[in-house]
Amino acid sequence: MPMLAPSRRTEPVIDYRPVMLIVGLFLVTLGVAMLLPGLVELARHLPSGEAFVASALVTIFVGGLMVTANRVEIGGITRRQTFILVVLAWVAMPAFAALPFVFSDLQLSYTDAYFEAMSGLTTTGSTVLVGLDSMPPSILLWRALLQWLGGIGIIVMAMAILPLLRTGGMQLFHAESSDRYEKPFPRATQLVSAIILAYVVLSLLCMVAYWMAGMTPFDAMTHMMSTVATGGYSTHDASFAYFESPLIEWLGVVFMISGALPFVLYVRAARGDLALLWDRQVRVFLATVVLASLVLALWLAIDKSLPVLDAIRLTAFNVASIVTTTGFASTDYNYWGGLVVGVMFYLTFVGGCTGSTAGAIKIFRFRVMAIVLNDHLMQRFYPHGMGRRTYDGHPLDEDVVEGVLAFAVVYAASVGAIALGLGALELDWVTSLSGAATAVGNVGPGLGPIIGPAGNFSTLPDAAKWLLSFGMMLGRLELFTVLVLLMPRFWRG
Amino acid sequence: MPMLAPSRRTEPVIDYRPVMLIVGLFLVTLGVAMLLPGLVELARHLPSGEAFVASALVTIFVGGLMVTANRVEIGGITRRQTFILVVLAWVAMPAFAALPFVFSDLQLSYTDAYFEAMSGLTTTGSTVLVGLDSMPPSILLWRALLQWLGGIGIIVMAMAILPLLRTGGMQLFHAESSDRYEKPFPRATQLVSAIILAYVVLSLLCMVAYWMAGMTPFDAMTHMMSTVATGGYSTHDASFAYFESPLIEWLGVVFMISGALPFVLYVRAARGDLALLWDRQVRVFLATVVLASLVLALWLAIDKSLPVLDAIRLTAFNVASIVTTTGFASTDYNYWGGLVVGVMFYLTFVGGCTGSTAGAIKIFRFRVMAIVLNDHLMQRFYPHGMGRRTYDGHPLDEDVVEGVLAFAVVYAASVGAIALGLGALELDWVTSLSGAATAVGNVGPGLGPIIGPAGNFSTLPDAAKWLLSFGMMLGRLELFTVLVLLMPRFWRG
Repeated sequence: MPMLAPSRRTEPVIDYRPVMLIVGLFLVTLGVAMLLPGLVELARHLPSGEAFVASALVTIFVGGLMVTANRVEIGGITRRQTFILVVLAWVAMPAFAALPFVFSDLQLSYTDAYFEAMSGLTTTGSTVLVGLDSMPPSILLWRALLQWLGGIGIIVMAMAILPLLRTGGMQLFHAESSDRYEKPFPRATQLVSAIILAYVVLSLLCMVAYWMAGMTPFDAMTHMMSTVATGGYSTHDASFAYFESPLIEWLGVVFMISGALPFVLYVRAARGDLALLWDRQVRVFLATVVLASLVLALWLAIDKSLPVLDAIRLTAFNVASIVTTTGFASTDYNYWGGLVVGVMFYLTFVGGCTGSTAGAIKIFRFRVMAIVLNDHLMQRFYPHGMGRRTYDGHPLDEDVVEGVLAFAVVYAASVGAIALGLGALELDWVTSLSGAATAVGNVGPGLGPIIGPAGNFSTLPDAAKWLLSFGMMLGRLELFTVLVLLMPRFWRG
Repeated sequence: MPMLAPSRRTEPVIDYRPVMLIVGLFLVTLGVAMLLPGLVELARHLPSGEAFVASALVTIFVGGLMVTANRVEIGGITRRQTFILVVLAWVAMPAFAALPFVFSDLQLSYTDAYFEAMSGLTTTGSTVLVGLDSMPPSILLWRALLQWLGGIGIIVMAMAILPLLRTGGMQLFHAESSDRYEKPFPRATQLVSAIILAYVVLSLLCMVAYWMAGMTPFDAMTHMMSTVATGGYSTHDASFAYFESPLIEWLGVVFMISGALPFVLYVRAARGDLALLWDRQVRVFLATVVLASLVLALWLAIDKSLPVLDAIRLTAFNVASIVTTTGFASTDYNYWGGLVVGVMFYLTFVGGCTGSTAGAIKIFRFRVMAIVLNDHLMQRFYPHGMGRRTYDGHPLDEDVVEGVLAFAVVYAASVGAIALGLGALELDWVTSLSGAATAVGNVGPGLGPIIGPAGNFSTLPDAAKWLLSFGMMLGRLELFTVLVLLMPRFWRG
């Protein structure tokens, strides 16, 4: 690390100490979270408890070392430090979160364990585990907990950090948070606390609902964690199909959607401001889910002669699962024909609202693209007649527009590049392309017999798992946060 | 048509007369071209000659009627008239060019005939015909002629019309033509004549080369026509594999690439200005072809244990065929594994240089996107340190950048929408997605067993053929030219 190297340039070298300090704090927190499933198991005198306690001690030790070795005042952290911090945190957290999978009776390879942990923390939900129904509860709880913790981490990151980095059009939400959202919250920490509270309340509501609808308390808790985090880990290989309950599926739809709405709007709703009902982002998102579900339901009703209500339930669940980037499965839609498979593939790119746990390109970017496209076409006939562009009343300046459009292009290129890498590992084209799309979108299932909704990622080669793990991180950090670090000029200061 | 309806608005109604006049002139030209294969056959007392003469008479009659009924002064044609003219011409030309296929012994359905004619004129090269080797020469000549005529039509359109419409970033070439290219040509007609001459000279060179390398004169002529037009129609079901000649394949590579270079640079080269050698667009294009060929050749040499030189010839031919959007086949690369199939799919989107016969997104847009992306990332650290952006010395203003980025997004969306339509017609996902991409990119072959390089489009349902015909026109007209007509405000004036 060049931290102590004498600078031969006039630009300041990067001070890694605050970065290391904060990552250390994250690791200590993660280690403490590991104790939870561990102690539950130890109390029941099960051997897997020891794996968790051992992992927790390693994690807390390393994290503690990083904290004590880098005790500096965290004052004004620079933008460059923030980029490094965010990426380093999302590389280091899964590295340690993977330990319980390695140390436990599962004896996963470190590759599998890292993939599972990255998939959990990024709330992707792709899994390499088979035989979930007979696994120790501690493992199942840890997977769910990773998603739940990852979910709140993502919301806070999307609210507090990404807009400051001004990448991919996220600066739009920086303006928004300072103009509108932040007004009732003089300090950012207060807003973050309120959002965490909203997340906890939504989680409790979800758990109680699942429980009352017939899940066991353990299933209700674990599925709650992976629902509100739009993660998608289940405790059953059959995912939601295991419950054979239309009520539970509909509750899943409601809470997956709840997890993909902007959490800041819940906070405002709790204070009496029902902006949630009028937010255009929310309405476009809901319209997308409803429209796609109805069209596919109509198709299934006609083409596969399914009863209409069954068709609506099936499509609503699976569409919501993909659009919210959750990835629960209630059926294998690979057998529903080319139209459905195609729609599901494209929905992998959509994603939910900004400031939620959902991934992928996200609704606001599609709205910005629609505004720009409409403008571009209109200007062909009215070259001088166009006023200043706005997005929900905020001026839509060139930097935001370019950020959004560049994001869409880089998103497609990233999916393409990762798919090529998977293709080079001898995976077929459908698996490669849908696998890359589902990883970068943090969705979960792909298409085809291997990684489709009825399959899993266990049989992929190790290199494919690392590539997909990278893809999940890339998507979760909104691409540019990672890509910036690949620019030589970033490191030159 | 609202032409004669009294206007209730203050905006002027559209005067369709000059539009109809020009389309009529195009049809007369097309009809005269039809006589060529017809008279060749009649001289040999073959019955298919009559089909061509009959088609020619119908076409010349309809075209002549349109000309005589709309004899107006073609002065300053408005931008709205130009949009309508371009789209109407590209709908009407295939409608009549299809007639010989219907009237001949082939007795194609009108759907098949329209698809074949649209594929020909747009220089796409997807075919519904099987058994080419035993077809009447007139049919084979007509297919080749459609591509050759389409090719020069596209170059002229891209040089003279699309930049004026200022869509999709093409305005960059408007500026370029007036600043640099047009200087030695005081009048546009003079430039167009010079470009047509360059096209004819290149065609002659190609035909002589093919002939000397061992093709029959007829094969040399027809393959010349579909090579320099980057079309891809062959006179053999096996395409270039029929000739079993490495020399012919390498000549194919050279002339496919020649057809995908900016023709205006040939004109300048002929006048002693060797800008062709320094043009960055050309260099990026050539680098793409060389790099993709070498990487895939290396892969085939290692993975399939092919001799290196054979591998390079195979990949160079097939990569050049796809990137130049020609679509000749020398082998079925579906069996080369996931990496090759993936690369071939992405190359379907690349395309050649602007002002050539190549389709797809095209090199200049990728360069603009790279410039914008680099800028966007750099601005994260140097918010005030960036100068004015340029593209080869021309200022890259917001309208161009947005046009290019919007084009890329709409391109992906168009491919996606058409693929969904094909999926709804019960085609599998690989056929749907690659079929849509190959149509919009005007490439030719898709992927998979049905429409892959060893297959053809004959077995697709009629609706799929119409959808793909629409896709070919959409791509050929650079998307926005067609989409503008779908905006209600376009028609309101």
